[in-house]
Order: sequence, then structure tokens, then C-alpha cells
Amino acid sequence: MRLARAAPLLVRTAATAATADPAAALKAGDALRARPRRFTEDDVAAYAAVSGDRNPVHLDDAFARGTGGFQRGRVVHGMLVASLFPALIASHFPGAVYASQSLKFAAPVYVGDEVVAQVQALHIKAAGARHIVKFATKCFMADEETLAIDGQAMAFLPTLQLSTEAME
Amino acid sequence: MRLARAAPLLVRTAATAATADPAAALKAGDALRARPRRFTEDDVAAYAAVSGDRNPVHLDDAFARGTGGFQRGRVVHGMLVASLFPALIASHFPGAVYASQSLKFAAPVYVGDEVVAQVQALHIKAAGARHIVKFATKCFMADEETLAIDGQAMAFLPTLQLSTEAME
Repeated sequence: MRLARAAPLLVRTAATAATADPAAALKAGDALRARPRRFTEDDVAAYAAVSGDRNPVHLDDAFARGTGGFQRGRVVHGMLVASLFPALIASHFPGAVYASQSLKFAAPVYVGDEVVAQVQALHIKAAGARHIVKFATKCFMADEETLAIDGQAMAFLPTLQLSTEAME
Repeated sequence: MRLARAAPLLVRTAATAATADPAAALKAGDALRARPRRFTEDDVAAYAAVSGDRNPVHLDDAFARGTGGFQRGRVVHGMLVASLFPALIASHFPGAVYASQSLKFAAPVYVGDEVVAQVQALHIKAAGARHIVKFATKCFMADEETLAIDGQAMAFLPTLQLSTEAME
């Protein structure tokens, strides 16, 4: 399958079996999965700097364990983990424009944990020259079962054709 | 009012007039407002690097105007603008832990635009030793009328006392 070569993965559900179609277009039911990502201490520091979110639960192990109640210490900013969703969508659909996102932070992601983001197209509707797509957005821990984040997003896509230049 | 000296502002609604109480505690109706923030080209580049979201609508003026449909060129990542909400909450309540966030991206924020984030406590409930608070989360353009982002967040706060060390 052509798309399996690209960095992000297209996972077709049983209802829409994978094909070798070189002009693959997004269909309802299709899921896109990102490569596993591990947020490092440096990532968290860089994000704290640009966002201004210096909550000590992200920066101070002792505080995170104590006041924060996080057994293993510092956790990654939830909104940084959530950034994987628009990143994944944009890697397949450059020019995608976000309309909405809901996020439920279901389990903490500790600094150094590996996570995998996945978005699945639930509904696709034409909107002028673009399409508006509702995605289920899920971020799993490395076991691929425990949900770290659950939610939905709506995004305008300039085309349903998957980019052949999917970014890393 | 003591809190007005801190970088972020506490704005009391008519129903809960401001007092000089040195041990100010959050009440339903209270709004916290951040200092105006302008996201620069460097901020957007730093965020693109840490999130992996290299959507050209954020990085390429011509693409943003063309495929993106953004008249004035590059726009700030919506999730970067949204990071102002947990940053604002954490600046008043270090140790706050996010449970959920909904976001509707109502208007584009262009690189260099000034925005103001505000969160308002809608509902406060005890949750063991902590409190869980539902906030209305709004980000306004510099005119303080046009909404860039609208939504709600739920966060666990270790205490309702506003920090006297509110961060910049």
C-alpha cells in the first residue's frame, strides 16, 4: 500500500479495505495514525517558553508528585500532546484549517512517555471548494489501549486527496 | 485591589464586587484576564518545531493567502493561541490540572496580532481536597470584542486561593 511508506500511516477500517489506489482520497471511516512521539524535557521547556504555561506540574518533579498528585513526576502539557492532532491532519492535508476541537484529558502523559495520536474521519461534507470533516481524535499511550486524550475535531480540508508529501 | 498589581488581572463581575481582601479566593462569576499577547514569527516557528505542526498556513504567507484563504497571510496555530487558557489558569493556580477543554476557532489570529485571553469561573465544586472548576474560556482580538476562540475548560485546582506569585 502506497501510503504505508509515508511517515504517518493510513489505517483503513474493515469497511473500506486498503487499496493500492495511487490517488487515495479520505473516506468516512479512514483513520490516520502518527508515528509514536516521545515528549522530552527539552520539548516541555520549549513549549512552556512559547505558551507561557510554567505550571510547576510540568517543570518540577517534586511539585508534580506532591501538589499535582502525579506519581511519576512531571507531566507533559495536555495542550502540547493535543497539538499532535492538527499536526497529523496537516501532514496529510496541508492547508487544513481547524474549526473546533474538544479534548478530554483521560490519563497523564509523563515526560518521556511514548504516545500515538490517531484521527478517524467520522463525517465528510462538501463546503464550497473545500470539505469539512469531523474527526474522532484519540491519543493512546504506548500500549495502544490506554487513552491519554479523547475528543473530536472539525477541520476544513482544501482537498480530500492525501498528500504525497506527508511530513515526518 | 491587591490582585490588580499582579500581571494577570482578576475581573470581578457586578454580582461579586472586588474587595481588598488579601486572601482572595475564586468565586463563581469571577473572571481572570491575561495581559495582551502578540505571537511573533519566532513563536510560531518554535511552536511548529515542538509540535511538529508545519502546516504551511502558519509558515508560508503566499500559501496562507492562496490555499488557506487567509487574506493577511500566515496565521498562528489555533492550539498555540488556546495554550493561553491553561497558562492563565496555572498562573493564578499553580498545580492546576486540566480535565477537559473545548475550543471553537471563531476568527483567525494572524502572526503579529494582539490577543487577550480570559477565563471565567462558571461553576465550582469540591472534589476531595481539591476543587473542580468549569471555566468559560474566551480569547479576544485587541478590540476586546471580536472572539478568536470560544470554549470551556474543566480544571482541578489545588486551592481556590489566588496565588500571590502570579507569573508574567
